Amino acid sequence: MDNSDDSKNISYGKNVKISDNVKFKGKIVLGDNVKISDNVIIYPNVTINDNSYIGPGCIIGEPTADYYQEDNHFFKPTIIGRNSIIRSGSIIYENNTIGDEFQTGHNIIIREGAKIGDNCSIGTHTELQPNVNIGNYVRIHSKVMVGALTKIEDFVWIYPHVVITDDRYPPMGDLKGATIRKYAQIGAGSLLYPGVEIGENAIIGANTMVKRDVKPERVISGIPGRDICSIRDIKDEHGNTIYPWKDHIKNYKGYPWQKKDQ
Amino acid sequence: MDNSDDSKNISYGKNVKISDNVKFKGKIVLGDNVKISDNVIIYPNVTINDNSYIGPGCIIGEPTADYYQEDNHFFKPTIIGRNSIIRSGSIIYENNTIGDEFQTGHNIIIREGAKIGDNCSIGTHTELQPNVNIGNYVRIHSKVMVGALTKIEDFVWIYPHVVITDDRYPPMGDLKGATIRKYAQIGAGSLLYPGVEIGENAIIGANTMVKRDVKPERVISGIPGRDICSIRDIKDEHGNTIYPWKDHIKNYKGYPWQKKDQ
Amino acid sequence: MDNSDDSKNISYGKNVKISDNVKFKGKIVLGDNVKISDNVIIYPNVTINDNSYIGPGCIIGEPTADYYQEDNHFFKPTIIGRNSIIRSGSIIYENNTIGDEFQTGHNIIIREGAKIGDNCSIGTHTELQPNVNIGNYVRIHSKVMVGALTKIEDFVWIYPHVVITDDRYPPMGDLKGATIRKYAQIGAGSLLYPGVEIGENAIIGANTMVKRDVKPERVISGIPGRDICSIRDIKDEHGNTIYPWKDHIKNYKGYPWQKKDQ
Repeated sequence: MDNSDDSKNISYGKNVKISDNVKFKGKIVLGDNVKISDNVIIYPNVTINDNSYIGPGCIIGEPTADYYQEDNHFFKPTIIGRNSIIRSGSIIYENNTIGDEFQTGHNIIIREGAKIGDNCSIGTHTELQPNVNIGNYVRIHSKVMVGALTKIEDFVWIYPHVVITDDRYPPMGDLKGATIRKYAQIGAGSLLYPGVEIGENAIIGANTMVKRDVKPERVISGIPGRDICSIRDIKDEHGNTIYPWKDHIKNYKGYPWQKKDQ
Repeated sequence: MDNSDDSKNISYGKNVKISDNVKFKGKIVLGDNVKISDNVIIYPNVTINDNSYIGPGCIIGEPTADYYQEDNHFFKPTIIGRNSIIRSGSIIYENNTIGDEFQTGHNIIIREGAKIGDNCSIGTHTELQPNVNIGNYVRIHSKVMVGALTKIEDFVWIYPHVVITDDRYPPMGDLKGATIRKYAQIGAGSLLYPGVEIGENAIIGANTMVKRDVKPERVISGIPGRDICSIRDIKDEHGNTIYPWKDHIKNYKGYPWQKKDQ
Repeated sequence: MDNSDDSKNISYGKNVKISDNVKFKGKIVLGDNVKISDNVIIYPNVTINDNSYIGPGCIIGEPTADYYQEDNHFFKPTIIGRNSIIRSGSIIYENNTIGDEFQTGHNIIIREGAKIGDNCSIGTHTELQPNVNIGNYVRIHSKVMVGALTKIEDFVWIYPHVVITDDRYPPMGDLKGATIRKYAQIGAGSLLYPGVEIGENAIIGANTMVKRDVKPERVISGIPGRDICSIRDIKDEHGNTIYPWKDHIKNYKGYPWQKKDQ
């Protein structure tokens, strides 16, 4: 390892802005209008595409553990899509591929091997363990732990303090990732066992512990989680059905089927 | 957005100390004896009152999301009271009003629209979502998530890993804040449903899920939380009553009714 | 307090590398081959032993609260062992003694008074409250809260989002630390009451609330936690016994009884 700066290896798009005390550590590609804030460190083989913003103190392309034992670590490529906002203090490891319109809170951690689609957001203090696979339009709130090998399909929302585990017989390291199908909602403070599958449109209530697979459109609640009802049985205080939420959401949240008229 | 420094717009009190690699991004007021540590960024329209300390790497006046889409973002005023200690890595958004004697742990996040009274403390990695209202002498420990619109009265304590939720039918964004009355204690790892009211002097046991309003002076425990007893039924191992805690607290913790003689 | 740099008081070993924007604030000892990354702050009376790496933005020797009220704060000694990797943004307070081969994730917090043995690791966003005592080969994952006075013996693993509490009658400050015996496993999202003892080889299932002492080799699960079975009753899907894990672990994890042949 070394702490040198290597600014001559940078490929700059048009109108790139680099603030102060920024370190570039190897071959890096910066698209048009990219903005790099103060105190950022970018390791080799990172590509940041057009119009993206890297907030103060971020580290992009953070090396995996073998870096500390090798003389000549090869940095696997890391790509961040266009129009993305990586807020301050966030750390994205090497060997990650992230789509367009990506947004983060502050101080998030994305470990190596993630594939993340377009229009996703990752909340403050959330951590993705290695080798997760995330679709498009996924929203993960604050302080979530996404275990290794987790697969999350499009339009899933995960609320604060959720823990998705991965080790079936800890500490043996016999990892199995959970699978969360389209439109599912994982309530705040819930915990998923290694390898469970959450069905499409399912709702996991707050503080639920999910030990078994959940069928589509079911509501699960409790510790351990029990099947409570269909999502279509939930009504608001006016007696209106509100799930599946895709059919009822009114406030503009940037989904493809919405128009921005508010 | 821009990354420029704008040091000529600063109003300095007496004996202000500014460390290295500090960025001031607009009109900023620093009271007497204010100390700004290394690598701090302060956005426009921030006032830091007398004798306050801003630790390394803090960001004060962090812009809200619209900043990234606007050419000329107006920063709403942010005020930090006197004699405050903001520890390293903390991020306080714009449009916040914080009282005197404020203290934080490290890496806290305060989103926009908070009103916080005097003598409060916010623990390491804790996050306040937008538009919370916090009284005086409130202590919030580490890794707490305070949901949007939460109202916390004077002398409340909230312990580590508590989650106060706000969205009644996620992800619809139909937000309702919880209300926590004076002297209430919210045990570690507990979760509050959107809009619940916790009565004065009530105690929420560790790991409790609160789905309904809690009456004053009641002890609630379990998932879901059940009413266990009156707080006056709790006794220590010597058989002494210990609640309401205001009447029994002995160690000096800086409350108005205490004298510092230890 | 002051923000001055004091580079003449440093004792350098051979081949020390110091990156940019580093602050040394007093008498500091750096062993051979120590590497200090960008934007690090080191307070007085810190010793960092041979071959150790301090990542970007770390703070070592962070002062305790009395520092902000004193004119001449005495920094108690802090020692970090050899061959250690302290990842970016981590904060280690003064008055800590940490052994060799120590590793951390990002943004960890170690408050004052910790004694930590050799070959330990502390995960991202984890916080150790004051005066904990940790043996050798202990692994603590991400976002764990280790309460004050906790005692953790050798080879214990603690998984993400565990909360170890310490205040028996909050907010009275009548602290009592938990004790976790050798080889015990504390499942993700679990919460321990103040002062409980977890027996040797015991397994606390995910999301368990432990209110009472746990005997050796027992499995505890639920809220509140109940005694489920012996650890020897757990079998994997092939019908094989897997606990006590020390006798069954196959993947190399660096334990003294293992050889690195994979």
